[in-house]
Amino acid sequence: MISADIAPKLATETGSKIVLMIMDGLGGFPNETGKTELETARTPNLDALAAEGATGLIDTLGRGIPPGSGLAHLALFGYDAFVHDIGRGAIAANGIGLTLKPDQVAARLNFCTEQNGLITDRRAGRIPTEKCAELCGVLNAKVNVPGVRIEAHPVMDYRAVVVFEGEGLSIEIADTDPGATGVPAKPVKATGAGAEKMVGVVEAFIAQAKEALAALHPANMILLRGFAVQPDFPSMQACYKLKPACIATYPDYRGVAKMVGMDILKTGMEIAEEVDTLEQDWNSHHTFYFFHVKKTDSYGEDGNFDGRVHKIEEVDALIPRIMALNPDVFAVTGDHSTPAVFKAHTWHPVPVLLWGKTVRRDATASFGERAAICGGLGRFDGPALMLELLAHAGKLKKMGA
Amino acid sequence: MISADIAPKLATETGSKIVLMIMDGLGGFPNETGKTELETARTPNLDALAAEGATGLIDTLGRGIPPGSGLAHLALFGYDAFVHDIGRGAIAANGIGLTLKPDQVAARLNFCTEQNGLITDRRAGRIPTEKCAELCGVLNAKVNVPGVRIEAHPVMDYRAVVVFEGEGLSIEIADTDPGATGVPAKPVKATGAGAEKMVGVVEAFIAQAKEALAALHPANMILLRGFAVQPDFPSMQACYKLKPACIATYPDYRGVAKMVGMDILKTGMEIAEEVDTLEQDWNSHHTFYFFHVKKTDSYGEDGNFDGRVHKIEEVDALIPRIMALNPDVFAVTGDHSTPAVFKAHTWHPVPVLLWGKTVRRDATASFGERAAICGGLGRFDGPALMLELLAHAGKLKKMGA
Repeated sequence: MISADIAPKLATETGSKIVLMIMDGLGGFPNETGKTELETARTPNLDALAAEGATGLIDTLGRGIPPGSGLAHLALFGYDAFVHDIGRGAIAANGIGLTLKPDQVAARLNFCTEQNGLITDRRAGRIPTEKCAELCGVLNAKVNVPGVRIEAHPVMDYRAVVVFEGEGLSIEIADTDPGATGVPAKPVKATGAGAEKMVGVVEAFIAQAKEALAALHPANMILLRGFAVQPDFPSMQACYKLKPACIATYPDYRGVAKMVGMDILKTGMEIAEEVDTLEQDWNSHHTFYFFHVKKTDSYGEDGNFDGRVHKIEEVDALIPRIMALNPDVFAVTGDHSTPAVFKAHTWHPVPVLLWGKTVRRDATASFGERAAICGGLGRFDGPALMLELLAHAGKLKKMGA
Repeated sequence: MISADIAPKLATETGSKIVLMIMDGLGGFPNETGKTELETARTPNLDALAAEGATGLIDTLGRGIPPGSGLAHLALFGYDAFVHDIGRGAIAANGIGLTLKPDQVAARLNFCTEQNGLITDRRAGRIPTEKCAELCGVLNAKVNVPGVRIEAHPVMDYRAVVVFEGEGLSIEIADTDPGATGVPAKPVKATGAGAEKMVGVVEAFIAQAKEALAALHPANMILLRGFAVQPDFPSMQACYKLKPACIATYPDYRGVAKMVGMDILKTGMEIAEEVDTLEQDWNSHHTFYFFHVKKTDSYGEDGNFDGRVHKIEEVDALIPRIMALNPDVFAVTGDHSTPAVFKAHTWHPVPVLLWGKTVRRDATASFGERAAICGGLGRFDGPALMLELLAHAGKLKKMGA
């Protein structure tokens, strides 16, 4: 069931409000204690909602598939990730508010450190965003490839996005990021036909960037990945008759949200500040809030089991403020698992909690991976979630007479 | 898994007999006692079958989708409701034994009450079927639209079906039933191209019908909906190599059954009479019985929790008579939920019970929504049910070597 395909005929506009909280990488794996991060965390508020509502497990992209964050979010928003592929460059560009024009191609640009031809730090010592902006200015001032307009934009920390504009460009370019240190950056290579001009453009850009940055160690080199054009999604307004809004601290999640038509709300970097934003916007026309929590994923990638536990507890302590707003439907899930013991995205299904007056209560008394196995929602693929949310918010008409 | 698509290659004809009981709107929702209708009902016989067999939950049209009865039944018979849409007019016509010819279009016709241009009762005080037949006679005698043959047929109570026959007709006509009282009937409108002639025909029919009925309050007006032609389904005989029969008290369910090739057995209005019919026909060539129970839905629409409980108990008391026939496979489910607390069809999944000597027993000890969450059948979409029934009846060959 792909919500975005089915809902347009059934969705009806109502004032009821849905809050979908996506805790990035929420799904976990037991450590030596035998419990996952979510099972370890003290979560009285989430447990109470699980007891009143229903839980289940989601395979965001399908069973066994380790999901990337962008596609996983799209799946949870009800889109078919096997039809609507998106490149990281487009996510990054949209995440800073750009909408790529038809003659533009974007790529994620990471500043990095190179020594003796080998990449020694893929994140250039995690330079701050201000430094990143300054370096983008250096590139924009010094790089000049004839016939193509090239502009670098800072995103966050060492992350930037570069937009190429001109005739005959192509996205058929392999990533130059080797994904490891101690090896050289990968050479620029076409991945399909008709990319000859683009190979030349990107080679020239990298060569000139390297020269411009040569004296600026640790950010003396760049890595590119995810060459992409603006994707063409039907909006959540069109598919679901929702007025959707996004509350997310990281630009890439705002990028995915913008691509499907969400209004992007300004917010701070702390989860409590995101709740402030939700409270401040609550009486607006918005009927759907995507509320993103990043740190559960970051700590997973770092192998920090306790950090994940604490972040989950931090979220739990904020739940009463969200429930005080009296949402019609409140759901909590993750875009994938990032168990600390794996230090990576994994395919393990993610627990989901659904609360609302119309939810048929199951026997689950807590929110956790194993409790959710016998949850009333069962186990299902990501793109069906939106239909569940819309139905429980009274936003779907009967199909057939 | 769409049974009708997959089964033709695997189905094999055997004498084993399947009984599929569909209790309309069976799925419920807890009232203030914390239990659903099915959980409240005393059902020792169904519980015993659940203990011996397996249970699960069905999303007839898919997660979150509130199902209409016609499509939901088609889904349970193994057809893809997203491919095989059907209009209410065709269901109604088939329900009284008509098969629409290629130049015929049918619509559901409800007699109603109009006062000062507003619809005050969409059911004309629930006139009896005899009165409905008499009024159809009046329409057939008095209405005359040149170039088109129009015939009204009584169905049940205030419900009738009108069949238009002629050249250049169309089903692209919006319902005139406003679905509410205190408002006028909707004007006749085309919903697509090429319906100009049909708009004129229907307008003339309604105007003449109104004149013919003017003095016959409370049935002094008509409402039309579900303009449709005969749908073209592969039959259950062709798909499943079954010899199917239908036992249903209400015409619309007989209509859906006829469309997929079932023999329609004559029966009475009581559930016990439906069991009489099953017993009387049991030694015939039929290998599949669709046994429909209507009142569980009607009481749900009326918000009558206790009425639903009693109907479920009435069914339970009749189960020993069905089991005494020694069916090879016996299944009980619903086409959707109609919880009394919602007074409407809802998307909540419907419990299913499967009994047979080949069913791998699960740990379920009773038949109910929450017990079924951990049932051996899991949670699945409607169109897969027929494969389960056929398999457990030994009617499916191995796929592949």
